[in-house]
Amino acid sequence: MKKYIYTFINGSAEGSALMNHTLGGKGANLAEMTNLGIPVPPGFTISTEVCTFYMKHKKFPSGFKKQLNSAILKIEQYMNKKFGCHKNPLLFSVRSGARQSMPGMMETVLNIGLNDDTLRGLVQKTDNAQFVYDSYRRLLMMYADVVMEKSNPLYSTTNDSIREELDLLLEKLKYQYSYKRDSDLTDSQLINLCNLYQKKIKSKFKQNFPQDPYEQLWGAINAVFQSWNGKRAIDYRKIENIPDDWGTAVNVQCMVFGNMGNTSATGVAFTRNPSTGEKKFFGEWLKNAQGEDVVAGIRTPLPIIDNSKHDLKSQFPKLYKELDEIQKNLELHYKEMQDLEFTIEEGKLWLLQTRTGKRNGTAAIKIALDMYKEKLHSKKQLLAKISPSHINEILLPTINPQEINNMNPIASGLPAGPGSATGEIVFHPNTAEQLYNEGKNVILVRKETSPEDVHGMYAAKAILTSRGGMTSHAALVARGWGKCCIVGCNDIEINEKNKLFKVGNRIIKEGDWITLNGTTGHVYNGQLPLIQPQISKNKLFNNLLSISKSEAKINVRTNADSPQDAKKAYELGATGIGLCRTEHMFFDPQRIKEIRKMIIANSLEDRKKAIMKLLPFQKNDFYNILKTMNGKPVTIRLLDPPLHEFLPTTKSQIQDLANDFNISYKQLHAKIHTLHESNPMLGHRGCRLAITYPEITQMQTTAIVQAAKQLLKEGFKPHPEIMIPLVGSIGEFIQQKNLITNIINQYSLQKLNIKIGTMIELPRACLIADKIAKLADFISFGTNDLTQTTFGFSRDDIGTFMPEYISQKIIKQDPFQVLDAEGVGELIKIAIKKSKSSNKKIKLGICGEHGGDPESIKFLYNAGVHYVSCSPFRVPIAYLTLAQIA
Amino acid sequence: MKKYIYTFINGSAEGSALMNHTLGGKGANLAEMTNLGIPVPPGFTISTEVCTFYMKHKKFPSGFKKQLNSAILKIEQYMNKKFGCHKNPLLFSVRSGARQSMPGMMETVLNIGLNDDTLRGLVQKTDNAQFVYDSYRRLLMMYADVVMEKSNPLYSTTNDSIREELDLLLEKLKYQYSYKRDSDLTDSQLINLCNLYQKKIKSKFKQNFPQDPYEQLWGAINAVFQSWNGKRAIDYRKIENIPDDWGTAVNVQCMVFGNMGNTSATGVAFTRNPSTGEKKFFGEWLKNAQGEDVVAGIRTPLPIIDNSKHDLKSQFPKLYKELDEIQKNLELHYKEMQDLEFTIEEGKLWLLQTRTGKRNGTAAIKIALDMYKEKLHSKKQLLAKISPSHINEILLPTINPQEINNMNPIASGLPAGPGSATGEIVFHPNTAEQLYNEGKNVILVRKETSPEDVHGMYAAKAILTSRGGMTSHAALVARGWGKCCIVGCNDIEINEKNKLFKVGNRIIKEGDWITLNGTTGHVYNGQLPLIQPQISKNKLFNNLLSISKSEAKINVRTNADSPQDAKKAYELGATGIGLCRTEHMFFDPQRIKEIRKMIIANSLEDRKKAIMKLLPFQKNDFYNILKTMNGKPVTIRLLDPPLHEFLPTTKSQIQDLANDFNISYKQLHAKIHTLHESNPMLGHRGCRLAITYPEITQMQTTAIVQAAKQLLKEGFKPHPEIMIPLVGSIGEFIQQKNLITNIINQYSLQKLNIKIGTMIELPRACLIADKIAKLADFISFGTNDLTQTTFGFSRDDIGTFMPEYISQKIIKQDPFQVLDAEGVGELIKIAIKKSKSSNKKIKLGICGEHGGDPESIKFLYNAGVHYVSCSPFRVPIAYLTLAQIA
Repeated sequence: MKKYIYTFINGSAEGSALMNHTLGGKGANLAEMTNLGIPVPPGFTISTEVCTFYMKHKKFPSGFKKQLNSAILKIEQYMNKKFGCHKNPLLFSVRSGARQSMPGMMETVLNIGLNDDTLRGLVQKTDNAQFVYDSYRRLLMMYADVVMEKSNPLYSTTNDSIREELDLLLEKLKYQYSYKRDSDLTDSQLINLCNLYQKKIKSKFKQNFPQDPYEQLWGAINAVFQSWNGKRAIDYRKIENIPDDWGTAVNVQCMVFGNMGNTSATGVAFTRNPSTGEKKFFGEWLKNAQGEDVVAGIRTPLPIIDNSKHDLKSQFPKLYKELDEIQKNLELHYKEMQDLEFTIEEGKLWLLQTRTGKRNGTAAIKIALDMYKEKLHSKKQLLAKISPSHINEILLPTINPQEINNMNPIASGLPAGPGSATGEIVFHPNTAEQLYNEGKNVILVRKETSPEDVHGMYAAKAILTSRGGMTSHAALVARGWGKCCIVGCNDIEINEKNKLFKVGNRIIKEGDWITLNGTTGHVYNGQLPLIQPQISKNKLFNNLLSISKSEAKINVRTNADSPQDAKKAYELGATGIGLCRTEHMFFDPQRIKEIRKMIIANSLEDRKKAIMKLLPFQKNDFYNILKTMNGKPVTIRLLDPPLHEFLPTTKSQIQDLANDFNISYKQLHAKIHTLHESNPMLGHRGCRLAITYPEITQMQTTAIVQAAKQLLKEGFKPHPEIMIPLVGSIGEFIQQKNLITNIINQYSLQKLNIKIGTMIELPRACLIADKIAKLADFISFGTNDLTQTTFGFSRDDIGTFMPEYISQKIIKQDPFQVLDAEGVGELIKIAIKKSKSSNKKIKLGICGEHGGDPESIKFLYNAGVHYVSCSPFRVPIAYLTLAQIA
Repeated sequence: MKKYIYTFINGSAEGSALMNHTLGGKGANLAEMTNLGIPVPPGFTISTEVCTFYMKHKKFPSGFKKQLNSAILKIEQYMNKKFGCHKNPLLFSVRSGARQSMPGMMETVLNIGLNDDTLRGLVQKTDNAQFVYDSYRRLLMMYADVVMEKSNPLYSTTNDSIREELDLLLEKLKYQYSYKRDSDLTDSQLINLCNLYQKKIKSKFKQNFPQDPYEQLWGAINAVFQSWNGKRAIDYRKIENIPDDWGTAVNVQCMVFGNMGNTSATGVAFTRNPSTGEKKFFGEWLKNAQGEDVVAGIRTPLPIIDNSKHDLKSQFPKLYKELDEIQKNLELHYKEMQDLEFTIEEGKLWLLQTRTGKRNGTAAIKIALDMYKEKLHSKKQLLAKISPSHINEILLPTINPQEINNMNPIASGLPAGPGSATGEIVFHPNTAEQLYNEGKNVILVRKETSPEDVHGMYAAKAILTSRGGMTSHAALVARGWGKCCIVGCNDIEINEKNKLFKVGNRIIKEGDWITLNGTTGHVYNGQLPLIQPQISKNKLFNNLLSISKSEAKINVRTNADSPQDAKKAYELGATGIGLCRTEHMFFDPQRIKEIRKMIIANSLEDRKKAIMKLLPFQKNDFYNILKTMNGKPVTIRLLDPPLHEFLPTTKSQIQDLANDFNISYKQLHAKIHTLHESNPMLGHRGCRLAITYPEITQMQTTAIVQAAKQLLKEGFKPHPEIMIPLVGSIGEFIQQKNLITNIINQYSLQKLNIKIGTMIELPRACLIADKIAKLADFISFGTNDLTQTTFGFSRDDIGTFMPEYISQKIIKQDPFQVLDAEGVGELIKIAIKKSKSSNKKIKLGICGEHGGDPESIKFLYNAGVHYVSCSPFRVPIAYLTLAQIA
């Protein structure tokens, strides 16, 4: 018969840490600790297989019951207690435990086995009626809530929950006696309360709280399984990409009590400091308390060791020594920082849990580096222990965690741009810019953003929008800049006219302060103190970066449009610019006028005139960027977006512009109308624009060449590369390359060997990549657009169906977040194979958003690209990923 | 040394009909006729290589001059005349002649060798001063025009041309003497005119007309080469897809004269009747005339044979017999109907040209079928001799050609829908429908059309738009219906408000008649008489169709949305419906209201209610179509376009709808706003719509199933197939297939074995075709959308750059017209390979516009599709193409 149950009793467990899939994380570690001789309350783990069987067949597998009874018997024998015996009762805790930790997502029932009979036995045995009735009260509450209500298929969230109703009874009682704490209740009050609880349960569920301990146990196991498919758990799995068919294990363990008096205690501890990474035992404990009291914040827990007389070391020196020994052994055993739970029951130490300890970014990096130094693990393991979010955390300002603990967010949205920011809110980009110039911190709040808002977005510390998804304009721009941003925050109702937003009953006006946590999507009222990172002085970070860089097999460049961004990326390790977009450069008010003149020009001559006015600006742009990246390659993409993006949209804007240009509103409106496109993403943009308006390419190339020439004269080493966007036919590339080469030759700059390449962002370009590669020096995959055309998805329009697609699992993940290996990836593989076949020297890169996503980087690296390019703040993450896969 | 010149003298030619590439069509046939012993004026052909050399190097190849002089010498010896001799002068004609006929696109110079000296010798020899001076006048005119002006690089079209100036001199002279015809001029008047001509030439070009015959000859040869790169010739080649590097040959031939008196004549003839195809010698001639007189229409030519006393047979019985013999031999020799030019000079017959005769559709089919019967060629050759335009011609009404000859079009646009139509113009689709219901013929004139106009477009005999290209909405709809349509007719200026259009100074008002020729793009004023085809009675057509069908290796289905279209396609040979779109069905005013209700519904229940109201309509649609196609497959595509296409756009329309639904304008406007998409082509449409609104699929499937069930009961054999549009991920297909299967099972209609398949119209679908094919019964390539996403081209927006792309040859041809083999085709090949690998029984088809394009059909057939589907009028063309390649 299949084995469904694994016991762990007194130094001997049937499982081990390797059986994570069967026993879940908690169960596997309980077994492991038991085998290590660490005191663990005896018990058994019901395997995840039982859960998946139960989910599928709505019943337990045959033979399961027999194994369960036999496990209970073994524990009874070892403990010399009996489950349900009124004289010497055995009590169980029932806890969930999946393969991967899902904190707080599933249910727990404690004190299983208590009933009107057994509690009397326990009172006799412990001589502590208050403790026993308090335990019974807790069981009644948990059981009614978890087993009788939540796992009941008729359970509805709209009624008052049993938990609320029972809480009310408790509060009433405390109010009656003017008690502040639950523990103020006397024995008889608790007895009374337990009776009231049982009556309420009966009246609500039309059935009694089950007095049969076995019925309690089965009910609790059943409830844990049910909670695997609870809404919270499903949602959590969706976010964390945990498969639904993993199922959870159930851990049934003898109860131990930290609240049996002054020789009892409970605590949580970390083998190293989870905030700083310091190699020092760290934790908190409470005397005469249960586990939940430590985290609930009602009593202030004490430090385990701070050399005061309150610390565990002073209060329980012998037990402290035992615990310290255990924690050292556990860390050495697991070769990983551990997070422990322990309970002292009447002078005996029990370990309830050990697991890999959560840590913040700084701690993660320090611990990994230290353990590498301590030879606890290899360089490869070092790298594996750092996650992108750890790096993100240390690169960005964060809200002081102490502050957050005491605050509730006023609203929540999608975490679109990382880090935190605090500032005065404004509703218009111009106001943002104005206040920014006055040196103020502002947060731009908009329903959604458009390219015309970019100056204000740039000026703002953070952006908050009420609409849009993770790939909306605001999200993309913010992520590119590594700027804090929350989008799709439906909770707030923006009234731009009156310059305020409503959230619930609260009104927040222009000038009021708010604070955003872009990593969680939370919005807080007021100005919370932020902690600013100092990257260049951060030895840990730089240490990690240099290890990552030395391990990585290919380079990481950055997507940067300004010298500031370029400088930031350089600090963060970028070896060049892989994508310097030129369109943002035109939104400057001085320039946009000339761009608009160009667009509305009626003759070639007028158009050329307007374009050439932009030359000095562009030259200056390129001069500064090339200078900043001195000696490193800078791939400049020629103008890409459709022209109408530069045009005004509102009536008054159009009128203003018409006045400026001395033409009628009607004329200008008609011109704008002719530029309207049904599907601008598939329209007159990219090199298509430059083929019909070759002056644009000529001006931009001239600006690049002039800037390079000046830098050479000044002794710098400019290294520009020119990238032609949106090529789909070889004729396009040839025409544009000729235009560019002619300008380079005109300026006699052949010796600089300026590379000319293209961005592959259309399926057709992938299919003719051999032809392109024959004539191009480099190819960079624009995976955003390639994803759009391969799927036929407009990034701006997927909001209407993508959420449904993901929740229905029609597609696994948003292909704009993680590269779609099956479709887009297949095209990239075809393109790489074709281009290498025709040009062995071709340089291949990627510069879409995916260049900063670890899963996508892995795919692209294996597909054979020579570099990835991503936004500055993603550079170290890309290096980490590349080092991890090297 | 390379051979540049090929002589043909008295039964012996250095070339032959096989040397078309070197000698051009005309030169090759002159050589062939010479070798056949047919009397051809001796001469020589300068090879096309000389032209390409000349174009490249701007000079003649070395050795060419020597070969030219030696050829002239050979002719002088044979003719016993001398080029430039004033006693017995030899005169030459110089004519172009490319590989493929380019009628009227290049230049000709006659009477080369005449000068002030030689003409005196010729007068003496012919005793016909009038003839000689008239010939001189013609030489001066042609030479000044062609050689001195047009081939002069400084030539500008803005000044008065020399031709106009010389014509003015002639007209003045005729006016002075009140002459009507050129031939009324006397000897001395002609002498005077020649002097005036020479003076004018001198004053205009600051140089004399060259008296040196060799200089004349070189000038003429040079001018013919130059004319290869004239604007007219380049434009013609672009339209006809003739490569620029073919070059033209030059034919230099002894002059023969049909205008040397009453024993001279000239004529053109066909070996069979080019209008009816009847096997009877046919042609026209004129006594004492030059070739150009026959076609110029100044004198009415006489029939060659009509058994009157005026025919050639009566007038020149011996020569007629000789000519009849020659024409019979030539047709037998070439195995093709010939178009001949002949001249009789003083009783001697000369053949000047033979070539494949142009013919209309009816004649082409009759001749091909007859020659097959006469065993002149094989079935394969029969099929090769018919072109799609021949079939088009006989399927559609045409303007009586006699009428067109006397009319000038008032405007021209792009020939978007074939055939001709005449009707009263209207500017609104509702008016079109109203007048249609009154039994009137109307032509709908719009700036551009939208789906809301479809009822009016349907009611109209033809559609004329001032905007849009060959793939605009109007063009696509019209082509689908085989309806006459002209788009992008910029010449007309539409004033919808005042219900008129201006063209030049002319104003055409609503109710005025116009006539369109959709095959040429010409618009005529007034009501021209049309000739209507009668297909079912057309034996020729049906004969050809049955031969084509028997030869074709795969089937042709049709794209049809209505029983009428289905019936038409059935008559034209379709074996089923490959694409029955369902969206047009919803534009009926009764239905669009329910669709709109569905869209603006706020609850699932309201939405379902609205949708289910459409069920009886849809059931009826499918009932009728399935009944019409009884026993044949009908592939029904579920709803495809984005929802906002069904919504009103103007303020008043929105207000009306809001009133209808009893909601505020603001509410409705807001709802419409939320449906707005940046790139609807890449948005919430196709199966994406059906996944978020599964009720649509359920309703449509129910309608299909109910219709099929009723037909079964009535004894019919319904054969529906259900096609899911825009699948890009396998999850989409699975979800939709399940919905459909459930409905089929609900109605217990499994036995009907309704096939469920998908339209592959996204690059990603091609890449996962193996996965799709595993679950699908059929796959149909939607090449329109696939072209859009592969290129990243929005069909609606390419107008801004595609013309430039084609003229700059950045791409060869519009990929929406002819399937792009390199990109889109490559994806199709990948998809076919993958889908066959996973499902050997998979049925593959194509239902984009390309299904009716011969070049695309060839590609798709070779790629391995099992059927093509195209608009009804393209069905016989598709069969012809398939038969041709079989």
